[in-house]
Amino acid sequence: MKKFLFVVVSVFFVLAAAAAGAPPKYIFLFIGDGMSTPQRMMADEFSRKSGHGQLAMNTLPFHATTRTCSASSLVTDSAAAATAIACGAKTMNGKLGVDPGNRRLESVAEVARKCGRKVGIVTSVTINHATPGGFYAHREHRSMGYAIGLDLIGSGFDYFGGGGLGKYADDRTAKEYKGNLYDLAAKAGYKVVSTKAELLALKQGCGKVFARGADDALPYELDADGSVATLAEFTAKGIELLDNPKGFFMMIEGGSIDWCGHSHEAAANLTEVLGLDRAVRVALAFADKHPDETLIVVTGDHETGGMTLGFAGTGYNLYMERLANQKCTVGEFARKLRAARAAKPDLDFEDAKKMLRDSFGFKFEGKGPMVLSSQEIDVLKAAFAKPPAGKSEPLADAARIIMSNKAGVGWTSGAHTALPVLTTSRGVKAERFTGFIDNTDIARKLKEIIRE
Amino acid sequence: MKKFLFVVVSVFFVLAAAAAGAPPKYIFLFIGDGMSTPQRMMADEFSRKSGHGQLAMNTLPFHATTRTCSASSLVTDSAAAATAIACGAKTMNGKLGVDPGNRRLESVAEVARKCGRKVGIVTSVTINHATPGGFYAHREHRSMGYAIGLDLIGSGFDYFGGGGLGKYADDRTAKEYKGNLYDLAAKAGYKVVSTKAELLALKQGCGKVFARGADDALPYELDADGSVATLAEFTAKGIELLDNPKGFFMMIEGGSIDWCGHSHEAAANLTEVLGLDRAVRVALAFADKHPDETLIVVTGDHETGGMTLGFAGTGYNLYMERLANQKCTVGEFARKLRAARAAKPDLDFEDAKKMLRDSFGFKFEGKGPMVLSSQEIDVLKAAFAKPPAGKSEPLADAARIIMSNKAGVGWTSGAHTALPVLTTSRGVKAERFTGFIDNTDIARKLKEIIRE
Repeated sequence: MKKFLFVVVSVFFVLAAAAAGAPPKYIFLFIGDGMSTPQRMMADEFSRKSGHGQLAMNTLPFHATTRTCSASSLVTDSAAAATAIACGAKTMNGKLGVDPGNRRLESVAEVARKCGRKVGIVTSVTINHATPGGFYAHREHRSMGYAIGLDLIGSGFDYFGGGGLGKYADDRTAKEYKGNLYDLAAKAGYKVVSTKAELLALKQGCGKVFARGADDALPYELDADGSVATLAEFTAKGIELLDNPKGFFMMIEGGSIDWCGHSHEAAANLTEVLGLDRAVRVALAFADKHPDETLIVVTGDHETGGMTLGFAGTGYNLYMERLANQKCTVGEFARKLRAARAAKPDLDFEDAKKMLRDSFGFKFEGKGPMVLSSQEIDVLKAAFAKPPAGKSEPLADAARIIMSNKAGVGWTSGAHTALPVLTTSRGVKAERFTGFIDNTDIARKLKEIIRE
Repeated sequence: MKKFLFVVVSVFFVLAAAAAGAPPKYIFLFIGDGMSTPQRMMADEFSRKSGHGQLAMNTLPFHATTRTCSASSLVTDSAAAATAIACGAKTMNGKLGVDPGNRRLESVAEVARKCGRKVGIVTSVTINHATPGGFYAHREHRSMGYAIGLDLIGSGFDYFGGGGLGKYADDRTAKEYKGNLYDLAAKAGYKVVSTKAELLALKQGCGKVFARGADDALPYELDADGSVATLAEFTAKGIELLDNPKGFFMMIEGGSIDWCGHSHEAAANLTEVLGLDRAVRVALAFADKHPDETLIVVTGDHETGGMTLGFAGTGYNLYMERLANQKCTVGEFARKLRAARAAKPDLDFEDAKKMLRDSFGFKFEGKGPMVLSSQEIDVLKAAFAKPPAGKSEPLADAARIIMSNKAGVGWTSGAHTALPVLTTSRGVKAERFTGFIDNTDIARKLKEIIRE
């Protein structure tokens, strides 16, 4: 009875604090583009097999199943999904920050700013891509990259970090062309930086920041050489720059998970998820220091690729550890192959075998799981003999497919699927993100929390 | 301030009641065999499109992501999964209710019985199949169906309902053969019934019951004609028979979802999930009458088929509503085809077209989503011309594949996959089933709750 009374009284005080509690001062929203449960679990199982334990994002205490359909289809695109997650309303695939009638919606980032918080937007892909754009842009179509860049500058948000504006930075064909977007950002008061050294040198109080690690997307985690700041580093710098007495809202997107889903590339997909998880860990470490003031939500916008953790050829087995043999993305391998061909026009299959060994860990003789069957070798030989078509390198594509097959990862679609995504959360008011929710509920709940 | 104090005081009393609360008197554990999030969501989207709203099982307030790996593989079979969910320990694929060293484990159903509760086991497939067996049997291998039947009789559980013992009922080749299992059950004090009328006539106080709706599995929901009791009816009767002052534990399995996953049959898969959901609704209606005494947990044992809610051919679209055109299972269509061939040896493709129209809603001319392309018609023609091999009817299989393609449902494996399953729960102590859990946690938490 004594123990029971102690529990009741303790719970009373904890709840009294919670009920009285102000909204979390620090709000982190992580979005994995093309990241549903299969992607989170492939990375999780790989991480366990590599001795690094579970993904941090999967261990957050509250889990919610999150429906992702758009106003036009059960299968959403990233623009409609970003609009739902950021603004709390369904729209047609392709539309960004506007409703089906092109009326402007208000994003949770805009609400946070109105309420006096600082706002940061970070992504591993281009910063005017659909997902980050959903938080600051209001355009009829996601393809209007220049106009979305104008909205970025006009947002007045405090920190943009990650990829650059891509081909839209100086798109003179754009209807609303007003000059180079980086110049316009600087004129609007943004400190515009483009190197890792410049990023790391930024100090609190330096004003609004627009920091890009590349002109386009950041390098894939699998190809990165350390010269460009990572998503985790952009997140850490964001925390440093945005921290202030009124708190902040920061959205961090792992954007290229989606691209590795479209291209059915298992190893690159999971290393991108691991890259996003490292950014989540930065936020968790910060939350450990501010446990009563922080809310962390991790979600995805949709599943990409129809990825499955099992495959006809591997039956009741899954070999995530085999993906550790892949040392670069398939795109990087294709570039290496093109370079090797340019350097040695009579490059033969023996040369290619060495490259396949180095990049994918394939073995052409001996024993072990990475030894190729004679059929697989024939497929690679035939692909090597095929002429490349545009960006596609048949040998690279054949190696990619064999790699997925060896690991036991299946794919059914080059597009997105309607599998719900998983939303996990921890911290102040995180318990609101549980059960079956809609992607629009994320914006709705976050706006409520900010306004409380 | 007044409002705040009111909230705090109210919460105090609610929590005080909860902390003091006894374990739930009534515990329901629903397991969808081969049912992970893709299966639950396919049925959910289909149900919405049909105007019946969301699946009840998906609306339960607590959601947990549940890892399913076994002691021998990341991809579990149903025996190891049942052992994990029922007994709380990992074992090798194939083993049932024993650990990797074949030592007997204790199931939550056995704990419930020891604690004075009545126990019921219900399934839509054979009652000595792996999943129900995990709750009462302790055998080196799931294939020992006769011995598992002996364990069923020896369990002393109060209610077995659903499918029969299949080919094992009188398996004279079994090492431990002691006679027909139904006779042995009757000798051991079970009231053994085999018709719907007998089931419905059973009254509380009639003693231990072993009620089968069929000698083998229950009919598929898509083929059922109402002459056999459904999973929902076996559940309702279970509640009636098991209700007593000390409460009960009942496990209800939707077993053939898995079979429709192995065979890549979308329409039958989702109607089986809907059948399980109707059983969940029976429990929810009971819980509405006993809100402070009931716990309902719904989970799956693993994903089957590598099913995806999207497919290369349908791009960013998914057409769940098209599955409503399928009026019987592919197996039933194959039986009809064999019967038609037997009745008319020169059965031609025109005859087959009529059957395909009736059973799958395919159209061979005109406009609309169910009109077949000339390629699809060629595929069906070629399949019709092929001789059947064993149980396989090439025309039935071709129709099955076209049906999945038309709906946009993809499949990657004939086996299971390692996708986590979704566990949802409602009621007394349901909040313990949230976050990332292992399938063994379900047994562990349920045993804890029962013993509190």
